[in-house]
Amino acid sequence: MPTTALIVGAGSGLSASLARLFVKEGISVALAARQIEKLTQLSSEIGAVSFAADVSKPDQVQQLFNDVDNKLGSVNIVVYNPSYRVRGHLVDLDPIEVAKTLSITAYGGFLVAQAAAKRMLQQGNGAIFFTGASASVKGYPQSAPFAMGKFALRGLAQSIARELAPKNIHVAHFVIDGAIRSALRPDPADKPDSTLDPDAIAQTYLSILRQPRSAWTWEVELRPWVEHF
Amino acid sequence: MPTTALIVGAGSGLSASLARLFVKEGISVALAARQIEKLTQLSSEIGAVSFAADVSKPDQVQQLFNDVDNKLGSVNIVVYNPSYRVRGHLVDLDPIEVAKTLSITAYGGFLVAQAAAKRMLQQGNGAIFFTGASASVKGYPQSAPFAMGKFALRGLAQSIARELAPKNIHVAHFVIDGAIRSALRPDPADKPDSTLDPDAIAQTYLSILRQPRSAWTWEVELRPWVEHF
Amino acid sequence: MPTTALIVGAGSGLSASLARLFVKEGISVALAARQIEKLTQLSSEIGAVSFAADVSKPDQVQQLFNDVDNKLGSVNIVVYNPSYRVRGHLVDLDPIEVAKTLSITAYGGFLVAQAAAKRMLQQGNGAIFFTGASASVKGYPQSAPFAMGKFALRGLAQSIARELAPKNIHVAHFVIDGAIRSALRPDPADKPDSTLDPDAIAQTYLSILRQPRSAWTWEVELRPWVEHF
Amino acid sequence: MPTTALIVGAGSGLSASLARLFVKEGISVALAARQIEKLTQLSSEIGAVSFAADVSKPDQVQQLFNDVDNKLGSVNIVVYNPSYRVRGHLVDLDPIEVAKTLSITAYGGFLVAQAAAKRMLQQGNGAIFFTGASASVKGYPQSAPFAMGKFALRGLAQSIARELAPKNIHVAHFVIDGAIRSALRPDPADKPDSTLDPDAIAQTYLSILRQPRSAWTWEVELRPWVEHF
Repeated sequence: MPTTALIVGAGSGLSASLARLFVKEGISVALAARQIEKLTQLSSEIGAVSFAADVSKPDQVQQLFNDVDNKLGSVNIVVYNPSYRVRGHLVDLDPIEVAKTLSITAYGGFLVAQAAAKRMLQQGNGAIFFTGASASVKGYPQSAPFAMGKFALRGLAQSIARELAPKNIHVAHFVIDGAIRSALRPDPADKPDSTLDPDAIAQTYLSILRQPRSAWTWEVELRPWVEHF
Repeated sequence: MPTTALIVGAGSGLSASLARLFVKEGISVALAARQIEKLTQLSSEIGAVSFAADVSKPDQVQQLFNDVDNKLGSVNIVVYNPSYRVRGHLVDLDPIEVAKTLSITAYGGFLVAQAAAKRMLQQGNGAIFFTGASASVKGYPQSAPFAMGKFALRGLAQSIARELAPKNIHVAHFVIDGAIRSALRPDPADKPDSTLDPDAIAQTYLSILRQPRSAWTWEVELRPWVEHF
Repeated sequence: MPTTALIVGAGSGLSASLARLFVKEGISVALAARQIEKLTQLSSEIGAVSFAADVSKPDQVQQLFNDVDNKLGSVNIVVYNPSYRVRGHLVDLDPIEVAKTLSITAYGGFLVAQAAAKRMLQQGNGAIFFTGASASVKGYPQSAPFAMGKFALRGLAQSIARELAPKNIHVAHFVIDGAIRSALRPDPADKPDSTLDPDAIAQTYLSILRQPRSAWTWEVELRPWVEHF
Repeated sequence: MPTTALIVGAGSGLSASLARLFVKEGISVALAARQIEKLTQLSSEIGAVSFAADVSKPDQVQQLFNDVDNKLGSVNIVVYNPSYRVRGHLVDLDPIEVAKTLSITAYGGFLVAQAAAKRMLQQGNGAIFFTGASASVKGYPQSAPFAMGKFALRGLAQSIARELAPKNIHVAHFVIDGAIRSALRPDPADKPDSTLDPDAIAQTYLSILRQPRSAWTWEVELRPWVEHF
C-alpha cells in the first residue's frame, strides 16, 4: 500500500486538495514547488515536509529526491502538477517563453518521472501520476506552446506507462477538462458546479491510486457536468 | 445519491461483481438478461429482482423498465453490459450474425439508454454506464462485427454524454482492455493478475458513480498491469 | 491499375463528382442507389451503368455485384457513400428510425465490403473506400443515431484495413468534416469556400487511390479552411 | 499557386524526394540542414539553394528565413522534417539527450513555423507541413523522448492549423508509420514494398499541397501495406 507521496508543483489548489486527502488516508506527504513560501501554510496545516525545487533542472530534481529520501524514505507515489503557459498568436509568441513552457510543462515531468522510477523499480512498486489538461488532447488556437507542452507530457506518460506497468509501477494521466475552482475563481451563482472542485478531482486520483493492478487505468478525463467537449 | 440500479446483461461475471458491490453499498438492484435462469443463483444470493428481456427488442425494453418501475421504483443507475460477437475473415462472416452483433452490442444500448433517460430526466438525475472493450477504440482484423458494434456503442455513449450531462445525468463509457477473470479463465499461476478481476472493475464503476458532478468522467480504460496496448 | 469502379449511394453530389473524375481517368463506372431514377441524368452524361439496390439487404447486394460482374467485369474500386440519419433528443427518437440509420449507414457498408472483398481477393488487388463524417469521430448531442452508424462504419473500415491491406487491398476511410456544396446549398457570397466542393473531395479520393502500396493511407480528414474543429 | 519551398531537415531521403518532386512541378526549392555538406549533391542535382542552420536556435532560424527571402523571395511552402531521438529505458536516459530531442524535434518546429507564418500572413497564403511518425500518436516503451518530441510537434501542428487555416494558410501533419526505404535500408527481397518509398510519401505531400481550400486535410497517415498498426 502507498505510504509516501511527493507532490510536485504543490502551490496549486489541486495539489493542496491531494495533499490533504493523502494525509487523511495515512500517507506521508512531501511537497515541492519553485517558491517554497507558497507551501508554508499548507505544510504546517497538514504536517507535510516541503522543498524548494525548480524541477526543470536535472540537478535540482536529483537534490529534491535525495532530500525526500532522507526525510521521508523512498516515495511510492509521485504526482506531477507543474505547468506553465503563454498564450497568443503564433507570430507574437516570445521564443524564450515557449521554451520555458516546454521545459516546465513537459521536460520537468521527464526528470521527475525518471528520479521516481529509479526508486520505485528498486522497491518493486509505485505510482506516477501526471496532471494533463484539455490541451493534452486538443491543440487550441492561440495556444501553441501549451499544446506542445501538454501533448509532450501525455506522450511521456503513455510511453512510460507501457514501459513501467509490467514492472508494477502504475502510471496514469489525468485530463482535466475545465477550469479548477478556487477562492479567486468561485462558481457563478447561477452555474453551480460549473468549475472542477479540486477536492473532487483529488478523490478520483485516490480511486485510481487504490486500483488493484489487475485493472489499472492509464488515462481518465474529468470535466464539469456543464462543460462543452 | 443513487438508490436503484438496473444491470442489463446480468449473466456476466462483471455484472455479478457490480450487483454484489451495489447491494453492499445499499443500492437496490434489478438484474436483466435474455435467459433469466442464468440469474437465479445471483439474485437469491444478493436479494435482487431479476427479469428476462431481449433488450434488442423495443417492446421488451419498454416492458422491462415498466416492470422495474413497479417492483423497485424508478432506476437512477443503469449499466449496459450485453455484447455479442462473431469472429472470422470478412468474406466468411454470416450477415445474419453480423446484424445480431450490431443489434445486441449497440442497438440494445440505445433502447436501454432511451428508456433510462426518460425516467432520469423526470427525476432530475441519474447515471447511465456502458461497458466497452478494446474493440471500442481499435478495429482488430478478423473481428469486423465486434468493432462495428463496440464503436457504435461508444458513439452512442459520447453523443448522449454531451446531451444528458448538462441535464444532470452522468453518462460514462468503460473501455475494458483485456480478458476478464472467471472460474473458467483463472490467471495462469506464473502470470498473477494478468486478467481483469471483475471485482476490481466494479470498484472503478463505483468510484465513477460516486463522482460529484463538478468532476465527471466520460471515459476511462482499465487493463491488467501486464497487458500490451 | 484500377479499371472498374462501383460507387454505392450514387445519388449524392460527392458520388457524381467521383463518377465524373473516375470516367475522366479512364475508369469504367457502375452506379448504385436505392432509387435508380436519381441516377438517370448522371449515367447518361458520363456513360455509366446504373443499378437499383437497397444495400442494407444481403440478397440485393449479392444481386448487385453479380449484375456488375456481368456488365462490367469484376470491380477493383468500391466506394461506399450511403448514409441515413435522424436527429433529435434521445428520448424523442423513433427506434425504427434508429435501426434504419444503423442499417443503411453501417450494415450496408459491411455487406458491400464483403462482396467487394470476395472479388478483390480473387483478383489479388483492389480498393474499398468509405465516406465518413465529423460524426465518425465525434458523437454530437441530439444526434446519437448518426454517431452510432458512422462510428460503426469507421470500426468496420479500421478492422478490414488491418485484415485486407496485407492482401493487397487498400481500405481507406474519409472523414468529411463540414457541409458539402451543392446547387441547393451554395457558399454564402461573403464566405467563399466555406463548404466542401465535391470535386475537391473527389480529387483527394483519387490521390489516395493512386498511392503506391508502400505508402498507403487508411484515414484522412477533409474540411473547409474556415471550418471549426 | 505555390512557387517557393523551404525544406528544413533536408538531409533525409524524404526531403530529397520532396525537393526533386517540387522542382519537377516548377517550384523553387531552398534546402536547410545543420550540416550543409549533406546537401551538396542534392542541391547541385536539382539546382536548389542550400543553407546551414540549426533550427532549434531562434537567431539561426531568423537568419535562415532572411537569407531565403533574399535569395528566393518569400516562401509559400515550408516543410519541417528534422527529428532527433534517443532510445532506452527511462532510468537510463541522459537528460541532456532528452532536452536535445525536444529541442530539435519540436521546438525547432515552432521556430520555423513562426518565421514561416510571419511571411505567409503578409502574402495572404501559404502551406506549413510537419513530418510526424508512429510516435506522434503512440508512446512506445523505451522511447519516451521521441514520444515527447513528436507528440509536442503534433500539438503544435494542430493548434496552428486551427489558428492559421482561416487565414488561408494550410497546415498539415503527416504521420509516417513505418521505416522509410533507403539505399542503406532496402526492402527485403521477400517483402516487397514493406518500407515506405520516399517518392511515394512525397507524392502524397504534393497531393495535400494541391488541395483547394474548400477541402483541406489537417492530418493523414501513411504506412506500407504490410505494416501492423
